[in-house]
Amino acid sequence: MSKQKIPATPSIRRLPSYLHIIRQARNEGYEFISGTVIAQELHLEPIQVRKDLAITGIIGKPKRGYPVAPLITAIEHFLGWDTSKNAVLIGAGNLATALTGYQEFQYHGLNFVAAFDKSPAKIGTKIHGVPVFSIDTLPVQIRNLDATIAVLTVPSQNAQETADIIVAAGIKAIWNFTNVKLKLPEDIVCQREDLTSGYAMLCVMMDAVRPKPVKE
Amino acid sequence: MSKQKIPATPSIRRLPSYLHIIRQARNEGYEFISGTVIAQELHLEPIQVRKDLAITGIIGKPKRGYPVAPLITAIEHFLGWDTSKNAVLIGAGNLATALTGYQEFQYHGLNFVAAFDKSPAKIGTKIHGVPVFSIDTLPVQIRNLDATIAVLTVPSQNAQETADIIVAAGIKAIWNFTNVKLKLPEDIVCQREDLTSGYAMLCVMMDAVRPKPVKE
Repeated sequence: MSKQKIPATPSIRRLPSYLHIIRQARNEGYEFISGTVIAQELHLEPIQVRKDLAITGIIGKPKRGYPVAPLITAIEHFLGWDTSKNAVLIGAGNLATALTGYQEFQYHGLNFVAAFDKSPAKIGTKIHGVPVFSIDTLPVQIRNLDATIAVLTVPSQNAQETADIIVAAGIKAIWNFTNVKLKLPEDIVCQREDLTSGYAMLCVMMDAVRPKPVKE
Repeated sequence: MSKQKIPATPSIRRLPSYLHIIRQARNEGYEFISGTVIAQELHLEPIQVRKDLAITGIIGKPKRGYPVAPLITAIEHFLGWDTSKNAVLIGAGNLATALTGYQEFQYHGLNFVAAFDKSPAKIGTKIHGVPVFSIDTLPVQIRNLDATIAVLTVPSQNAQETADIIVAAGIKAIWNFTNVKLKLPEDIVCQREDLTSGYAMLCVMMDAVRPKPVKE
């Protein structure tokens, strides 16, 4: 986990959803989109949407809303999605395969250039066109791959030792899909994807609606 | 997306991480754990941790911290993780296979009881022991499966039509891994898992550390 404090984390997490809606508006030929429309689509408060979008530096115009094309550019630039990034997958199992097949990432400049695994059965194969190499070759291969991100999808018990290999190979950003809080040097950024967080939200929402059946 | 407003969303999303650390403390024989220790592990402010844990109804004791066993019980109860829930996977591809193999869910009372797919090649097989059935049999099978959650992992272009089938079959909670905002009746709860949100966070963190090399 990075020690760097990032302000406005929930706002940043919402920007991709906004981007998705605004791109749709562009594809449908709209030149302007209002914060209220975005808010309705996502069941948010309009003031929240306007606050979130303000961090990208674009301000809406009264009555007309936001100019669609500049807003897309501003969000993409704020997120760094206007420059392409090469990533390597560490672990070439089902999750890695699912990620390489997730087309959305391509629109955000994320290219999976290689996967690394220990399993002889996987080495030499491809997952959605991405070649799988031996994890032992990571330090050598990384020099040619121009990769800035490692996506960690190994079993949790191997997470820390694999992270150490990634760091030693010179990668500075780790997207961690294991349930392990990695111990990392100060200059490494790490985003942990915790699927149990989403499950917690779902459970609390289920609980919130559960008392209702009395009304039925 | 549920129209139900859930308060303290970021707090709820953090509870699983707390639970993970507190369970670890229990396994190591600790009877008490301080909010400060949890905060340090997760790079959060202690006040934030105390606020978040307060929503579960447990208050720490000065100097000693939180009693570990009751705190685990309180978090699990708050999240509804003390009652087991049956879930069906809709779509039996790589993501579904990864989810069934993710052992963490078992500790949270989540049981995958069946998967449903369109592909004849998958129907009749098993993914991590979970049987795969034809999506056409969902309405009939759902009666015997006692499933309250559908995990939607189909390709995005099939998301809405599949969601309609799920709703017609009587499922009230959808965990949506597609990038589609589903149109759902008011009484259906839905949690969308947006992998691009995490990628956005990673990119912004990478950007935040990028200007630093001047110091090196």
